Amino acid sequence: MRIEGENETNMTEASAKEPFVLFMPSGKRGRFPVGTPVLEAARKLGVYVESVCGGRATCGRCQIEVQEGNFAKHKIVSSLDHISGKGPKEERYEKIRGLPEGRRLSCSALILGDLVVDVPQDTVINAQVVRKAASDRVIERNAAIQLCYVEVDEPDMHKPLGDLDRLKVMLEKDWGWKDLLIAPHLIPQVQSILRKGNWGVTAAIHRDMDSSRPFIVALYPGLKNEAYGIACDIGSTTIAMHLVSLLSGRIVASSGTSNPQIRFGEDLMSRVSYVMMNPDGREAMTKAVREAVNGLIGKVCTEGEVDRHDILDMVFVANPIMHHLFLGIDPTELGQAPFALAVSGALQYWAHELDIEVNRGARLYTLPCIAGHVGADAAGATLAEGPYRQDRMMLLVDVGTNAEIVLGNRNRVVAASSPTGPAFEGAEISSGQRAAPGAIERVRIDPVTLEPRFRVIGVDKWSDEDGFAEAAASVGVTGICGSAIIEVVAEMYLSGIISEDGVVDGAMAERSPRILQNGRTFSYLLHDGEPRITVTQNDIRAIQLAKSALYAGIKLLMEKQGIDHVDTIRFAGAFGSFIDPKYAMVLGLIPDCDLDEVKAVGNAAGTGALMALLNRDHRREIERTVARIEKIETALEPSFQQLFVNAMALPNKVDPFPELAKVVTLPERKVLADDGGGEGGGRRRRRSRE
Amino acid sequence: MRIEGENETNMTEASAKEPFVLFMPSGKRGRFPVGTPVLEAARKLGVYVESVCGGRATCGRCQIEVQEGNFAKHKIVSSLDHISGKGPKEERYEKIRGLPEGRRLSCSALILGDLVVDVPQDTVINAQVVRKAASDRVIERNAAIQLCYVEVDEPDMHKPLGDLDRLKVMLEKDWGWKDLLIAPHLIPQVQSILRKGNWGVTAAIHRDMDSSRPFIVALYPGLKNEAYGIACDIGSTTIAMHLVSLLSGRIVASSGTSNPQIRFGEDLMSRVSYVMMNPDGREAMTKAVREAVNGLIGKVCTEGEVDRHDILDMVFVANPIMHHLFLGIDPTELGQAPFALAVSGALQYWAHELDIEVNRGARLYTLPCIAGHVGADAAGATLAEGPYRQDRMMLLVDVGTNAEIVLGNRNRVVAASSPTGPAFEGAEISSGQRAAPGAIERVRIDPVTLEPRFRVIGVDKWSDEDGFAEAAASVGVTGICGSAIIEVVAEMYLSGIISEDGVVDGAMAERSPRILQNGRTFSYLLHDGEPRITVTQNDIRAIQLAKSALYAGIKLLMEKQGIDHVDTIRFAGAFGSFIDPKYAMVLGLIPDCDLDEVKAVGNAAGTGALMALLNRDHRREIERTVARIEKIETALEPSFQQLFVNAMALPNKVDPFPELAKVVTLPERKVLADDGGGEGGGRRRRRSRE
Repeated sequence: MRIEGENETNMTEASAKEPFVLFMPSGKRGRFPVGTPVLEAARKLGVYVESVCGGRATCGRCQIEVQEGNFAKHKIVSSLDHISGKGPKEERYEKIRGLPEGRRLSCSALILGDLVVDVPQDTVINAQVVRKAASDRVIERNAAIQLCYVEVDEPDMHKPLGDLDRLKVMLEKDWGWKDLLIAPHLIPQVQSILRKGNWGVTAAIHRDMDSSRPFIVALYPGLKNEAYGIACDIGSTTIAMHLVSLLSGRIVASSGTSNPQIRFGEDLMSRVSYVMMNPDGREAMTKAVREAVNGLIGKVCTEGEVDRHDILDMVFVANPIMHHLFLGIDPTELGQAPFALAVSGALQYWAHELDIEVNRGARLYTLPCIAGHVGADAAGATLAEGPYRQDRMMLLVDVGTNAEIVLGNRNRVVAASSPTGPAFEGAEISSGQRAAPGAIERVRIDPVTLEPRFRVIGVDKWSDEDGFAEAAASVGVTGICGSAIIEVVAEMYLSGIISEDGVVDGAMAERSPRILQNGRTFSYLLHDGEPRITVTQNDIRAIQLAKSALYAGIKLLMEKQGIDHVDTIRFAGAFGSFIDPKYAMVLGLIPDCDLDEVKAVGNAAGTGALMALLNRDHRREIERTVARIEKIETALEPSFQQLFVNAMALPNKVDPFPELAKVVTLPERKVLADDGGGEGGGRRRRRSRE
Repeated sequence: MRIEGENETNMTEASAKEPFVLFMPSGKRGRFPVGTPVLEAARKLGVYVESVCGGRATCGRCQIEVQEGNFAKHKIVSSLDHISGKGPKEERYEKIRGLPEGRRLSCSALILGDLVVDVPQDTVINAQVVRKAASDRVIERNAAIQLCYVEVDEPDMHKPLGDLDRLKVMLEKDWGWKDLLIAPHLIPQVQSILRKGNWGVTAAIHRDMDSSRPFIVALYPGLKNEAYGIACDIGSTTIAMHLVSLLSGRIVASSGTSNPQIRFGEDLMSRVSYVMMNPDGREAMTKAVREAVNGLIGKVCTEGEVDRHDILDMVFVANPIMHHLFLGIDPTELGQAPFALAVSGALQYWAHELDIEVNRGARLYTLPCIAGHVGADAAGATLAEGPYRQDRMMLLVDVGTNAEIVLGNRNRVVAASSPTGPAFEGAEISSGQRAAPGAIERVRIDPVTLEPRFRVIGVDKWSDEDGFAEAAASVGVTGICGSAIIEVVAEMYLSGIISEDGVVDGAMAERSPRILQNGRTFSYLLHDGEPRITVTQNDIRAIQLAKSALYAGIKLLMEKQGIDHVDTIRFAGAFGSFIDPKYAMVLGLIPDCDLDEVKAVGNAAGTGALMALLNRDHRREIERTVARIEKIETALEPSFQQLFVNAMALPNKVDPFPELAKVVTLPERKVLADDGGGEGGGRRRRRSRE
């Protein structure tokens, strides 16, 4: 075999005679002797082609397709004549299990001439129905679990090696596994499983850590052709989960559930308080979240028609407090300086050690935490978006009660958290509500008339379109959700209703009846219905405090990096998926940037968990990365307070927004009387951190 | 530092100026710069000196003594002037904890000149009382457990590494541990233990397998200066246990208890039958033996005044059926051909996985089994006696219901089992009983008068000595135990009462009233009391069958080795400790050998377990050894039947006993009528194996 480089001029005579094989989509290619099985060629080139049965043409996992045609770029002609016909084993497989048109079993198909071979990205056996495609991302597969079918020698009085020991001999002989360990619960079962399978068994091997010995974690009589994994993000509010085939990489089901810990406290700090004040508080919250995870596993398994005992590997991400509570660790230290994590590194468990009810041999891996307020969820998002994999300076923001901020590129990555509070989620806002039917989600204000128009979740029409009232009748107009709060405040600023300092201009009341006076301050009437929806001066202050905290945190990291602009911005989390980047920038939530480079990436933490589940190299990658991320504690930075004060202005008192100015006309500066927002900022910080 | 060879002529000028240090009893020596701590010199030479505190002069484990004098052989003068005086740290230790006269802490004592340093073989801290010395053997210590005290950095907001992660950093920095894992139950405890110890903690590190990562298995606030281990041999009848300090190697307590499985069946095969016939039989027996082990741990801990939670490592040996039942494995396959072990290799567990109640982080290691009837106990005995470590051909025999036989030397080791049945233990013998007060244990027969004299357990006098009757009155004379059965049959042969074929010579009834007729056969009256103790023809047949099975097995192995005599014989097990080698040889239990080379070694299996407990290298050693031992299945060997028939004769029909003949006058051969002993042999084999 000869692996081809770009330069093929020095081809030896021998290799020149050998057929040329190109694998797609990887593009890996090489020359192989006539008669080489396609699977063997793939293996030698490092092309990932799954195989459970070890070339017996029974598992059907190693399917490929030959692409016919003249591939001028590679100077080869690929033809079905260049691959051997189906032999008896492959024909038997096709007869019993079926093979899609054009598909071949690469363990049985031999190379006869030049070939372009297509490796389907998910070779689905028994046509598992896919319910959801949670991510379009193609993750190169290198799962910690490998299924290996072997045929074990029967016991022999002359060679009294035990059943388990003969199984290990065969796993080494056929699959190359050395120094195998076995999950203890399997030891008493080996005997009967071997006999039930008539000495043919499939071992699930877990090979998580390079420096550790591989483990037999499950054992099945006969051929077992599927194994599943769970990727889970435990958020304070929501637990999100993917159920995925570890063999094909296909997401079988995705779902979410509320975090039942909410009954102990709405936000993280109230849950820490609960632990501090109740002797059984930690235990109760640990039990609640584990039960919710077990319930959610049941849900995705039902949806995906998968037996939960076929789940053999799991990866979890969570913010630090959820991480600790899930693992049964007291989170009290995280509620007070110095915010000490009990453990920051990645951890490995047997799933049953955390009371997770899946296969008894299933492993569970948690991503590392970055810092006391920048958790394994931020690590997951970092893995998914990969600022450290690129040259451009990427800002990655996950906005929740605490914003987790990561900034960096290939050279250096810094991270921090900032206590934004729950304003962005609609809490602490007079008419705020969670995103649900009836909630206002989009707002525009006419700069001349100061009249608003808006859209409501569950209604297609804008409020100024004909038929809106009829369409909205069923859901009502009930409040403002997070994305609309951003928009309405930004629009109020763009239309001159509020000053750059966030003060509602009472003089505007002359121009519009929507400017209402409330004692010393003014508010804006967004919708005069039942309920009446207004944006008050206090609402604007709450948003200013939240956005200042976030922006100041980002600026602090930019200072650490010595930069005055970022190249690209990623909003992780549900909130980021709904806000309009333009308004976020008008508000000064994020620094100036080409708007085309501001993207919402959804549950990036969950995507990171998925990557670590499907490819164990990603575990090492994020462990190494987190170890070198520099953590900035905003509370300790002397410049934070000034950055925070500057960020109270819209979009910012000192920072220019040239990219934003290209698409939005920002109002002239006008300064009105302040009613003490700066103090409020100090108050919030104390409440969140002490 | 320069490690000295035998030839010191090429000493460089620099090293010649450095003091010379000789460590005893290891004899390791080298030159070190003035000012080197003695502990550091020991470490560099590979001299085992324990230390928990890492050179802080607080654990007191690293004690040494300087031997003063002129050591002409090494051309050095060792003097107390050549070691530094006690510094403040060492003085503080001496004041608080006390130091025996002449003892120094090697971490604090600096080399100032030439020294001969004595490393005490067990440096006992807090004067643990030693109750029993179970073995005189000195086992070089290299326990799987190492206690390591470290002082961990306090949490720092600027470096948000978790508590566990900072602990790992310090364990790597101070002790060199890389890639540490941690027992999952400790993860939630790390936080509070670090704070309780004011950031000074002792980690117990378990490093069992070279290719696996070391584990933190226990964690203590402050300095923890002791850890214990258990070595246990689970026999069919008796469970034997040593409790040992893993730091000093000292046996703190040894004890034994009956195997409660006896209530399910007296011998192994009846227990297998119980499992086959009762659905819950396996589970009940597993529970019974684990409970007994837990009870015995309580007993040795009470005796040794040790908290069972300070037990961190355990090594178990057992015969194959006990091994399987202890591990929760169905032993049914071991009751029928091909006698397939479910697992033969060494295994590792967390002790709690087998319901063993010690420290939650304790590990449990089982030695490998050699074959379906040659268990981990035989492996333990093999490790203890080490036929594979020497040139001479050693026969190692453990006589129980099944005899386990190992024969070999450095070049080759073979092993087999032979179904001797319970006759040697006094069962199936008309007047047989277990060794207990009242049992006859020694027998002599006058070759002229045919009158016997004997000794009884619990009575000092022989039966023909004055005052015997009075002395024996309290215990009585109740039966014959195993060792006396060997002797009485051998003496009957030597005195001509039975022929070489084992037939009681009825003609002798004319010479002595002790020869009694019972229908067609005759018996010998050993004691005319209450009860009346006789040796019947059937008793002799039972002994012949047992000894033939053993001898035929030994001969088979000798044939495999191509030898006609063995150099040395070891009797392992309780039975071997009581029998007289001379009589065993007269009876033809064992092949001819210089009687000085026949030794009883007691519970060699338990000693092997102890070695594996105190030195993990012994685990690898016995794993490698067992892998290369050749196992012979006697039932499959065509020559076994003939060897068995030959061995029915006393001492043997065909084999000469030249060494025995030097010390014992063997009678002329006389052949009397047989009553079918050969058939009985066939019967026994079926009963034991099918």
